[in-house]
Amino acid sequence: MSRLVMKFGGTSVATTALMDRIADRVHTLKQAGHEVLLVVSAMGHETDRLVDLAAQIDYSALDGRQESDVLLATGEQVSISLLALSLMKKGVPARSFQGHQIAIHTDAAFSRARILSIDTERLEAALSDGIVPVVAGFQGVSPEGRVTTLGRGGSDTTAVALAAAMKADECQIFTDVEGVYTTDPRVVAGARRLGQVTFEEMLELASSGSKVLHSRAVELANKYAVPLRVLSSFVEGPGTLITSEETMMMEAPLISGVAFTADEAKLTIRGVKDQPGIASRILSPISEANIEVDMIVQNVGADQSTDFTFTVAQADFEQAQRLLRQISEEIQAGEVLGDAQIAKLSIVGVGMRSHAGVASRMFEILAAEGINIQMISTSEIKISVVIDEKYLELAARALHAGFELESSSD
Amino acid sequence: MSRLVMKFGGTSVATTALMDRIADRVHTLKQAGHEVLLVVSAMGHETDRLVDLAAQIDYSALDGRQESDVLLATGEQVSISLLALSLMKKGVPARSFQGHQIAIHTDAAFSRARILSIDTERLEAALSDGIVPVVAGFQGVSPEGRVTTLGRGGSDTTAVALAAAMKADECQIFTDVEGVYTTDPRVVAGARRLGQVTFEEMLELASSGSKVLHSRAVELANKYAVPLRVLSSFVEGPGTLITSEETMMMEAPLISGVAFTADEAKLTIRGVKDQPGIASRILSPISEANIEVDMIVQNVGADQSTDFTFTVAQADFEQAQRLLRQISEEIQAGEVLGDAQIAKLSIVGVGMRSHAGVASRMFEILAAEGINIQMISTSEIKISVVIDEKYLELAARALHAGFELESSSD
Repeated sequence: MSRLVMKFGGTSVATTALMDRIADRVHTLKQAGHEVLLVVSAMGHETDRLVDLAAQIDYSALDGRQESDVLLATGEQVSISLLALSLMKKGVPARSFQGHQIAIHTDAAFSRARILSIDTERLEAALSDGIVPVVAGFQGVSPEGRVTTLGRGGSDTTAVALAAAMKADECQIFTDVEGVYTTDPRVVAGARRLGQVTFEEMLELASSGSKVLHSRAVELANKYAVPLRVLSSFVEGPGTLITSEETMMMEAPLISGVAFTADEAKLTIRGVKDQPGIASRILSPISEANIEVDMIVQNVGADQSTDFTFTVAQADFEQAQRLLRQISEEIQAGEVLGDAQIAKLSIVGVGMRSHAGVASRMFEILAAEGINIQMISTSEIKISVVIDEKYLELAARALHAGFELESSSD
Repeated sequence: MSRLVMKFGGTSVATTALMDRIADRVHTLKQAGHEVLLVVSAMGHETDRLVDLAAQIDYSALDGRQESDVLLATGEQVSISLLALSLMKKGVPARSFQGHQIAIHTDAAFSRARILSIDTERLEAALSDGIVPVVAGFQGVSPEGRVTTLGRGGSDTTAVALAAAMKADECQIFTDVEGVYTTDPRVVAGARRLGQVTFEEMLELASSGSKVLHSRAVELANKYAVPLRVLSSFVEGPGTLITSEETMMMEAPLISGVAFTADEAKLTIRGVKDQPGIASRILSPISEANIEVDMIVQNVGADQSTDFTFTVAQADFEQAQRLLRQISEEIQAGEVLGDAQIAKLSIVGVGMRSHAGVASRMFEILAAEGINIQMISTSEIKISVVIDEKYLELAARALHAGFELESSSD
């Protein structure tokens, strides 16, 4: 007997017909003797509908997060009640739980709350009565007893936190893809589902454009050593198991995947004096404007001045460019250059720790295709490059083939 | 300074634009120094949408009320958060409260729960901080901590219970009509808004087809002596104050109003033996089928057998007719007759207590129009008759004029 936490996202519970299929799946697992806890998101576009409703009021001038959390939490409340009914209809005893009913204690950071702890008493009681708890993802209760929501990746985070608190054998995240792939199957025909990846690889893949799982949930699973599995709601299959490095096969492959994104833009400020604190003077106003910076590259030239380059999300490009022009004046630097026509490619793999020469092989593969590299950034298990956006697909296919990802063992 | 509970129904909060107007109204009252608590229903057709969603699952074969209550409660949760945001936007400090947050304690009769008590601590704290509490109507929390809903008339009942618990000076129910009328203005041109009616009159009017307020809320207001005012969300005006008899004007008018409904049907079982317990043998199977019986008339004839006649809602007519045929066989009675083409008219007024001859005057007025009376039923402050449905409007106008309701003082 295993204890499983199964999380279904918005597309997986978009209709009552899909809930009916989930109920069938849970019924089978229950009959096989497993203990099942479900975590669900709001149905399909329900959250968008609620956000649009609130936007009609145009309360942007005030801090309305405490009340918009009350509003948004209804989305999951609808899902849990309908899914509980679907289960009961199949003869599976079920009971819905809102965040405050369990309780999922969070801090008071409305709209982006952090989970502090989860009471397990009611859930354990339900399980020992043979009841399937259907838990609202994305929501919790503040120390003062108010509704909180967890922000981005919230439902995945609820599932992992619940699996940790309930000491589940596995946390299964059901999505609209069949697992984690070596690269994006829509771009590279030979893309292959990975049987396993490590938490670290998954984090690097997530931050490099592979949007299967939010890194917040992966980090939490890593911290509490919760085995995490990504699998499809729509297609039967083993999915991808995300686990700690120790439990991986002895000989990890060199490279697990090629991730990429074209959603970034590059900004360069020229003629920056090379003096202590200059990077912070450039980036502080950017981060104060809530703009997230991804890659940062700085090279010192011979004349004690440097070009400082970083990437931001394309949505933040124009605002960042305006800010950077002001900053350039303030610090008496030179021209500000911007380029939104870029792509970031990353190769990720724990195997590269113990193998030299991965970076140079990557650069060779790209050079053989005549692709110029604009920026390079490396971490222990990842190498990222920025290239011209028009070469993105060519580069992805070349790297996927060059590192022999198609033929790797599962 | 007054303390007011204001309740807004679904049509009054159907859009965010309407909420904006409510916020303006509350803002004015706050500036005049009043303490305001709001109770709201779900927006417009939101409850219907949720009921339709649940109906897709078709869980009719099981008791899903615990979960459908979780579902339905989201409707009011959406309203309270949006209305709180609308108030905050006007600079009025506001905070939403769900049933469990206050808490509104109910029994565990899911889908038709009764309020047991309301904690006032959080609400008093909010009021003394200058905050307008925006309370979800229709919902509460069971002894076990689960979501309950109150069933029909639920939001009005929440408002009255809250006004009683918070010792409010008045409970104002905002609707889409301007108050309680002497009769239906759509049928009788001379219909006039009443300035005041007693709780008893209001109860009789409600049970006789005047659907302004659910009798459950009126009963509760009567029990706790909460002054209740019905007024329009859309048109400025004093509305109608529903209050105890003692506080009414010295000389109450003879008749307060003429109520009517065409939504009933009449059933007669002939040749019933006149023996003890026979009425219960006829009506028990009807009430066991959850069919509500309204008027009941039985007359004993010379031959020790009787015709037993009663009315039910038209929606229950066919089922009641089937049941009655079985019952007739079992008790060896005669023919079962049914008639859905009937109307019930009632005249209501506390004044008739001290005035003889009101009934005979009513019958004279109807006779003068050539209208035959099929059934008569009387209570201390009400006389009801059943007539052929086609005479309904004629009878309503004749009674309204005959009792001089158009010219009565307010």
